[in-house]
Amino acid sequence: MSHVLTLNAGSSSLKFGFFRLNGTVEDPDPRIVGSIERIGAGERAHIKAKRQDGFVLIDQEFGRNHVPDHDTALARAVEFLKEQRPQAKLDAVGHRVVHGGPDYDEPVELTQTVMDRLAQFEPLAPLHQPHNLAGARAALKLFPEAVQLACFDTAFHRNHPWVNDTFAIPRKYYDQGVRRYGFHGLSYQYISETLHQIAPHLHMGRTVVAHLGNGASMCGLMGGRSVASTMGFSALDGLPMGTRCGQLDPGVLLYMLMNEGMTPAEIEDELYRKSGLLGLSGLSNDMRTLEAAGTEEARQAIDYFVFRIRRELGGLVAALGGISTMVFCGGIGENSALIREKVCAGMGWIGMELDETRNMRNERIISTDFSRVRILIIPTDEEIVIARAARDMLARRAEAAA
Amino acid sequence: MSHVLTLNAGSSSLKFGFFRLNGTVEDPDPRIVGSIERIGAGERAHIKAKRQDGFVLIDQEFGRNHVPDHDTALARAVEFLKEQRPQAKLDAVGHRVVHGGPDYDEPVELTQTVMDRLAQFEPLAPLHQPHNLAGARAALKLFPEAVQLACFDTAFHRNHPWVNDTFAIPRKYYDQGVRRYGFHGLSYQYISETLHQIAPHLHMGRTVVAHLGNGASMCGLMGGRSVASTMGFSALDGLPMGTRCGQLDPGVLLYMLMNEGMTPAEIEDELYRKSGLLGLSGLSNDMRTLEAAGTEEARQAIDYFVFRIRRELGGLVAALGGISTMVFCGGIGENSALIREKVCAGMGWIGMELDETRNMRNERIISTDFSRVRILIIPTDEEIVIARAARDMLARRAEAAA
Repeated sequence: MSHVLTLNAGSSSLKFGFFRLNGTVEDPDPRIVGSIERIGAGERAHIKAKRQDGFVLIDQEFGRNHVPDHDTALARAVEFLKEQRPQAKLDAVGHRVVHGGPDYDEPVELTQTVMDRLAQFEPLAPLHQPHNLAGARAALKLFPEAVQLACFDTAFHRNHPWVNDTFAIPRKYYDQGVRRYGFHGLSYQYISETLHQIAPHLHMGRTVVAHLGNGASMCGLMGGRSVASTMGFSALDGLPMGTRCGQLDPGVLLYMLMNEGMTPAEIEDELYRKSGLLGLSGLSNDMRTLEAAGTEEARQAIDYFVFRIRRELGGLVAALGGISTMVFCGGIGENSALIREKVCAGMGWIGMELDETRNMRNERIISTDFSRVRILIIPTDEEIVIARAARDMLARRAEAAA
Repeated sequence: MSHVLTLNAGSSSLKFGFFRLNGTVEDPDPRIVGSIERIGAGERAHIKAKRQDGFVLIDQEFGRNHVPDHDTALARAVEFLKEQRPQAKLDAVGHRVVHGGPDYDEPVELTQTVMDRLAQFEPLAPLHQPHNLAGARAALKLFPEAVQLACFDTAFHRNHPWVNDTFAIPRKYYDQGVRRYGFHGLSYQYISETLHQIAPHLHMGRTVVAHLGNGASMCGLMGGRSVASTMGFSALDGLPMGTRCGQLDPGVLLYMLMNEGMTPAEIEDELYRKSGLLGLSGLSNDMRTLEAAGTEEARQAIDYFVFRIRRELGGLVAALGGISTMVFCGGIGENSALIREKVCAGMGWIGMELDETRNMRNERIISTDFSRVRILIIPTDEEIVIARAARDMLARRAEAAA
């Protein structure tokens, strides 16, 4: 019986999960997941947590300045978890780290050497990597006895063919790390593993997974392995997202620089935080709000989102040389029947036929019985992928020690 | 009987065509096409021209400084044409102008008001529009009696659905003209008109045209009209080209700005002139050179070019909801059997089946007899589209005068 803590540290947030894992079989029941938001000096941080079954364990604000940094946030989270599971001894801490650079294609134990190497990737993901590592540093201090490991959003995509790993710019950039990394790898790995469990013959085929949440991307899988993704070097490319632009002509950035006189920081802010569904609708980054709004701008934002998914779907199917399975996941993919319906409409040329009733009911299989392409909804679970990686690492250690 | 001069002015070049047009029937035999390259102070400019049948009429260098600007270049070209066709009276001058902005969806007569309006689009195409207009100004001075008109590379795409016309950035950019204009419109119009002549039933269907030259893009046509293109706001987006990058993660530009400390002008130079096939191969922007080279880098550059065409093909087919015809044109599209073969390989899932022998012979139809998708080679002709527009404008004038 092992206990594993998973951590996902953002700029002002810390998400945590607490798992009990049992040898080869996971026991998800006692899982606790939660988050502390609004970490920072002068802020009133907020902790929330619930059990796997949805039962809310805590939902309260801290006093101003009580959680000024990630070290304190982690201490608060651990205090809370100790109250909940006083007997549990922590064996491992698994960290979600967005960027594993060009080489890491699987989880890695966090030694000092590895930490130094991961810090070198900060320029590749300046908005995420430094915070991920701040969380890792806090945990290394607090749990010197536990095995600590990093699980990367890029690792699942690291064996793409070269044409899916590069851009057509001078080669020196590729050599210095400007590549099509792809992200959301923990989610795609979960989908791939689940597909392997529930339908091994589909897992062997050509699959397109649409991870549609506030961040959104798509991945083409062949035999369960990632072949191509819509995300590239940064978390900006591909599909439009809640506040991120997705695919953008590089000429638009030159225009912003040369004609609008914007600074790089202003452009970064515009493309990461004010674009996407929010920028197009002028209303919200939340699909539920847009679906309910009924304004022309909200409808156009939805149409654009759907259209880019369809266009990327065609591109990924071309990369795969066909498609046997389409999977929807992520907050929007799992819950919006409207988006799924619009994505699949008129896709008969590719063999996709949606069953309206199944789709409305959010069933697992939402294609018709005679659809050539199987269309599925699979709720994704990035935390369990980290917890399983921790379990496997503990098992290898035990084996090596034996 | 009308005589029409077509002009296409670049930064240091002037391409010209001289046509005799006969009422509704064009008479292309006496067409003369040529160019003056290396226009500029201190340069030795070079004039070349040939007849439609390939017979070379002139191929010679001027003395240093003899052609310092577009005014002089035009005068030199006209001198040469007068020697060739002493009797011809020039009725119209048709200018290729890259950018017609958001509104012009057909050719327009060049009045002063129109010239002023076109000058406002210079920020949208800073590397082309100012030179196009310099050529137009020179011709307006030299031929005050002739009808002069602008034909736009953007016009053919101006009725795209909104989802194909915008990016997911704040709406103010769309309102100020940041849109997916699409280019190579004169070429696509020629292909559409030719398809209408030779196979009206295919023209009615869903067509993807790959214009593959030193500049390259693809266009999805429905019933002969443009629905979507791979090029967007600038001439950088979509397919990789001789020296241009094609699709690029916006995060790469932020990286160049923030980590490499590059200036906007340096980035522009890198993406327009040092990227694409040249940047990837480190060797050449010319496909013939790359095909002959046999180096690993040259092969990879070709593979990347092909792969992006395939991926965009899938995207455009999704935008069209299927495909009945695929057309190759442009220097590479018309002449490289290798590229066509690689693009079509394994595209059976979409109904494409290439006939190897027909492809090797550069035949007009290169699909097999039983291929569901018809695959064609149609040599494109942008000049004749301009000449026809001039003929139509002259005819409307004559009608109005009668």
